[in-house]
Amino acid sequence: MPTVRLDIAYDGSRFSGWAAQPGLRTVEGELQTALETILRQEVSLTAAGRTDTGVHAWGQVASFAASGHPERGLARRLNGVLPRDIAVTAATAPPDGFDARRDARSRTYCYRILAREFPSPFEEGRALWWPHRLDEAALDACADLIVGEHDFTAFTPTQTDHVRFERSILRAEWIREPETGVLMFWIEADAFMRNMVRALVGTMLEVARGRRDLEQLPGLLEGAPRAAAGETAPPHGLYLASVAY
Amino acid sequence: MPTVRLDIAYDGSRFSGWAAQPGLRTVEGELQTALETILRQEVSLTAAGRTDTGVHAWGQVASFAASGHPERGLARRLNGVLPRDIAVTAATAPPDGFDARRDARSRTYCYRILAREFPSPFEEGRALWWPHRLDEAALDACADLIVGEHDFTAFTPTQTDHVRFERSILRAEWIREPETGVLMFWIEADAFMRNMVRALVGTMLEVARGRRDLEQLPGLLEGAPRAAAGETAPPHGLYLASVAY
Repeated sequence: MPTVRLDIAYDGSRFSGWAAQPGLRTVEGELQTALETILRQEVSLTAAGRTDTGVHAWGQVASFAASGHPERGLARRLNGVLPRDIAVTAATAPPDGFDARRDARSRTYCYRILAREFPSPFEEGRALWWPHRLDEAALDACADLIVGEHDFTAFTPTQTDHVRFERSILRAEWIREPETGVLMFWIEADAFMRNMVRALVGTMLEVARGRRDLEQLPGLLEGAPRAAAGETAPPHGLYLASVAY
Repeated sequence: MPTVRLDIAYDGSRFSGWAAQPGLRTVEGELQTALETILRQEVSLTAAGRTDTGVHAWGQVASFAASGHPERGLARRLNGVLPRDIAVTAATAPPDGFDARRDARSRTYCYRILAREFPSPFEEGRALWWPHRLDEAALDACADLIVGEHDFTAFTPTQTDHVRFERSILRAEWIREPETGVLMFWIEADAFMRNMVRALVGTMLEVARGRRDLEQLPGLLEGAPRAAAGETAPPHGLYLASVAY
């Protein structure tokens, strides 16, 4: 059967993450229901990044096999039935045998931080509000250390089914969003483990607040246990930004 | 009594506008309750712009008279008790006799339009989604005509208590927000009448969609009746951006 590729954006606030779970509102669940309503066939979705509860996406990619070539006009029809916190920005016919998860060369995530004294109603649930000390030079130094291949055991939950903990970080960089003043951490890797970006951000924030030495970071990136690294930053600052194929 | 100036941002989605009304959730009502709780005195607020239901603010300014000099630390305390859709970004002691409404030299509003085929979950309630034809050159031509002094009778409700309908438009300009692709209409004037920006935007959108001739606009700006102009654009695209003193 031919494959369809969907490009999807969602506000993760009111979802129990991507992956369908009985009785919970999930992005996959909502999409699957919408697709089966429109296409009148059973659909099984594969996603490039299985985002956790509360995590957002600007550029999630999913694929599914379907009889016929239903991609034409599909994005518009899906947006007509989907809830307003999900939007399909493209429905296309990818190369034969395309698999959104397996074929992804890299994923890029962005973590947004509103680093100022006062909160913003427009960043509520969209950025981590950080009214504390924040040494930006320390953040930059951390990002530089993160680039490259490392063992990220310290940045993913202990109870995990991964067999190898090495990942290749292609890009790690702090950038200030000019219009909003929001500080963004951009990170691109071949693949990520569960909570990895959030644990990296949580640890960097401890360094930038002066509560952890920058000198610890290289050791943490060489397979230290989870307890050695910092807290997991909350999900509402995190966005699956894009996927490269 | 000395005066206090508050700079305020709010997401207008869940408010029945600025002005306090019995039984309705309003920005003024929430602020007044928060101030009276903290200051333990009666407070009467004056705002630079009395925004309507659903209209947002990045830079509303309000003032009130209070005994003592309570501005120190007040913004932080207010943010501690205010709901998350209002934030006080500054509480300061203005010059003696300051009045946020009377002393304003100009107000600047911004109307945000997501002009593309597919919606965005992140612009839901924050920008008008416009998947229709949009002639940007026509929008620019409209904005050029709006600058200057005109009679805006055609752009405010017929049932109104204004006595003069002339307003001086200091700036009117369409700009594309680089990061989001959102098209923004920026307008600054000495003062605005009720619904005026929304009626101007609604009329410009009719021109840009090819449903109204640009040539009509000069006549509409010379005191035509309300029915001659276009529809009032919805409130959720509109922001009170800033106030100049």
